[in-house]
Amino acid sequence: MKNNYIKPSILPGFMELLPNDQAIFNDIVNKITNIYENNGCLAIDTPIIEKSSVLLAKSGGETEKQVYRFEKGKNDLSLRFDLTVPFARYVVQHYNDLVFPFKKYQLGKVYRGERNQRGRYREFYQLDIDVIGKDKLSAYNDAWVISLASKAFRSIGLDDYKFKISNRKILKGVLSQLQIVDVQEVITLIDKYDKIGKDNFNDSLRDIVGDEKSSYLTNLLNFKGSNEILLDKLINLNIQNEFFSEGLDELKKVVSTLKILGVKDNEFEVDLKIIRGLDYYTGSVFETFLIGNEQFGSICSGGRYDNLAENYTNNILPGVGISIGLTRLFFVLKEIGFIDRYNIKSSSDYLIIPIGDTLEYSGKVMSDLNEKGYNVSIYFEDDSLKKKLSYANKLNINNVIFIGESEVDNNEIKIKNMISGEEKFINYKDL
Amino acid sequence: MKNNYIKPSILPGFMELLPNDQAIFNDIVNKITNIYENNGCLAIDTPIIEKSSVLLAKSGGETEKQVYRFEKGKNDLSLRFDLTVPFARYVVQHYNDLVFPFKKYQLGKVYRGERNQRGRYREFYQLDIDVIGKDKLSAYNDAWVISLASKAFRSIGLDDYKFKISNRKILKGVLSQLQIVDVQEVITLIDKYDKIGKDNFNDSLRDIVGDEKSSYLTNLLNFKGSNEILLDKLINLNIQNEFFSEGLDELKKVVSTLKILGVKDNEFEVDLKIIRGLDYYTGSVFETFLIGNEQFGSICSGGRYDNLAENYTNNILPGVGISIGLTRLFFVLKEIGFIDRYNIKSSSDYLIIPIGDTLEYSGKVMSDLNEKGYNVSIYFEDDSLKKKLSYANKLNINNVIFIGESEVDNNEIKIKNMISGEEKFINYKDL
Repeated sequence: MKNNYIKPSILPGFMELLPNDQAIFNDIVNKITNIYENNGCLAIDTPIIEKSSVLLAKSGGETEKQVYRFEKGKNDLSLRFDLTVPFARYVVQHYNDLVFPFKKYQLGKVYRGERNQRGRYREFYQLDIDVIGKDKLSAYNDAWVISLASKAFRSIGLDDYKFKISNRKILKGVLSQLQIVDVQEVITLIDKYDKIGKDNFNDSLRDIVGDEKSSYLTNLLNFKGSNEILLDKLINLNIQNEFFSEGLDELKKVVSTLKILGVKDNEFEVDLKIIRGLDYYTGSVFETFLIGNEQFGSICSGGRYDNLAENYTNNILPGVGISIGLTRLFFVLKEIGFIDRYNIKSSSDYLIIPIGDTLEYSGKVMSDLNEKGYNVSIYFEDDSLKKKLSYANKLNINNVIFIGESEVDNNEIKIKNMISGEEKFINYKDL
Repeated sequence: MKNNYIKPSILPGFMELLPNDQAIFNDIVNKITNIYENNGCLAIDTPIIEKSSVLLAKSGGETEKQVYRFEKGKNDLSLRFDLTVPFARYVVQHYNDLVFPFKKYQLGKVYRGERNQRGRYREFYQLDIDVIGKDKLSAYNDAWVISLASKAFRSIGLDDYKFKISNRKILKGVLSQLQIVDVQEVITLIDKYDKIGKDNFNDSLRDIVGDEKSSYLTNLLNFKGSNEILLDKLINLNIQNEFFSEGLDELKKVVSTLKILGVKDNEFEVDLKIIRGLDYYTGSVFETFLIGNEQFGSICSGGRYDNLAENYTNNILPGVGISIGLTRLFFVLKEIGFIDRYNIKSSSDYLIIPIGDTLEYSGKVMSDLNEKGYNVSIYFEDDSLKKKLSYANKLNINNVIFIGESEVDNNEIKIKNMISGEEKFINYKDL
């Protein structure tokens, strides 16, 4: 026997689940992907490893620092940090073989070497929908992707969430109208609003743009009221600016289309503080918060990008997408008790316990139940009955079938309901 | 407009599918995982990145050279090269939370920096089943995992495959009986039998073990006949050796259990040339070939490992597993025309085409069809009717629903069957 065992462990920031939780995770994935498929999204899958030159063509700054990048042979490789950039690459590469508008969903792991902290993952699943058009893509699609995310959440029994939506062009137009020079600085500041709090925000904003513009902006960012009232207030600002008008028109269209597509008024709100840090968004932007649990951050985000593929092609390929960070969502749902209340059917309907030399008959029973669609397994090991029943209990198996030699002789089975404890004999032909 | 576009491409040895093929790939995955779930296998998922110290504890030689290994911060990391070693780590790490015998399936991508050649992938999906016991695990399980792979293949309509099975202990016993010294060399040679051909094999074997032992061995390796005849021949060798006897007993048990579990005689054959290169196998070994297409190599392999977790624990955790190399299987099935004949339902049952200002009504129709379980999407873009119908055609959408203003007024829809070309009006309430 060796003395120096290697401690089995995984890296911090990587999620690994026990079978019960994994079953719930997979059930969530299946329910959501079913919604996406039933709404005409095609599945795609792309490599996790991409050429660094392709993957990092557009990115820079914070994103690039977090990328897992390495060499293998002569190749400079990177693990994808989201599914959106590889999707842009996919669309350009397979342009002639795709049908536009191309509606897709994709499930996959992505990698970010983030600072290690609880609830932040370095490997995590994203589940994305995107629509990409040839030359043009209407703002209806912006609403449509949100409506699918809404259906997705409702399919898993989640209802206390709120989409927060805005349009980057509106802010861009306002800043232009105010003749603000440090646009990027102001945008970065607004993006951090929730993190730094109102007071710090106001102070910093005043430092950048001065008193007057600062109070105009904070007033605007904190507009309160229903979506209609908010839109009216924006209209009444009377800003004559191309960006502002375009953004406002798009936002109005998104709001009205959301209702048409079945997203309820209390599921979403216009919030001009929503920016999305990623610099590829150009119009609509959305985030999603769990009501009462906003401190966990957005569980589902996305937006419109008009130029995502610009490094690969001169074709115009505007798109809009929404992404559920599944690993993070699972973490949050576990924290708030949702996972522990989640209903999922038992992994096995039946456990067959052969007693004595009855494997042949047991195999027949298994096949029959299997063909009827039941989950069945056989306990093959030569253990005590107590141990076998404890196995069934621990795995929440509802029914145990005992097959001894007398059952074989009588062409029957003995079945025990593990919940009621009831035992009965059933003739094989009545199975 | 920029001039220097980055050519969108992926690395050689990475598979990326167009949506039609991806839908088939996913359908295959779903059918097989359903089989595994219906037979009591629990799903697990492990990180793709592991600590090199943990992942490479046991490996060496060829495997280690192929590993994608890199540093991030202070960490020495590796991408998993199979699902089996991470599974061993998982079982030891979560030992106290698992129920044994632990039956699991896992789907995931694995990475090997193989020499670049057609049909060899550097990133590929494996879909594994494993059973792992506490202290002991009967050979019934070896047959059971094969029987699940058999059901898996039949579930996707594949029937021209053959499992080739052996038991390493038998060969080990024979070599010991023959007092052969260069055991590893002989085993490596047998493992290459198919690659180098019979003549080269015979020559090389003669060089290693001499004429007499060589002809004894080649005779044994080329035993022909039914599984029963082959087993009889092995029994009649009358070798008195612990390994040989154990291996033969296990092999007999596997053969008889396969039949009990519904694997037909023509689905499998005993073949002593099956070795499996990986050094963690200790008993049963299996490979699977497509009949008439053996040149593509094994599409599904596995075996028994008694000591896989020995680097992590002194607990005895014998296991047996079988793995389908899904990416490679898909490549092979594509090559032999199976994928192009594969039947899969259309991505969308209905495409709704709003004409004029009818989006609200269209949204209602979509919701209704959606709730009835149909695949539905709306064509949002303002394109010509020709383009819209061509979109439906290209995506194999069976029914197009036109909703113009007169349809809204009459509370009906106009539906066109894209296969028959038939058009009719349906009242909304009869939908």
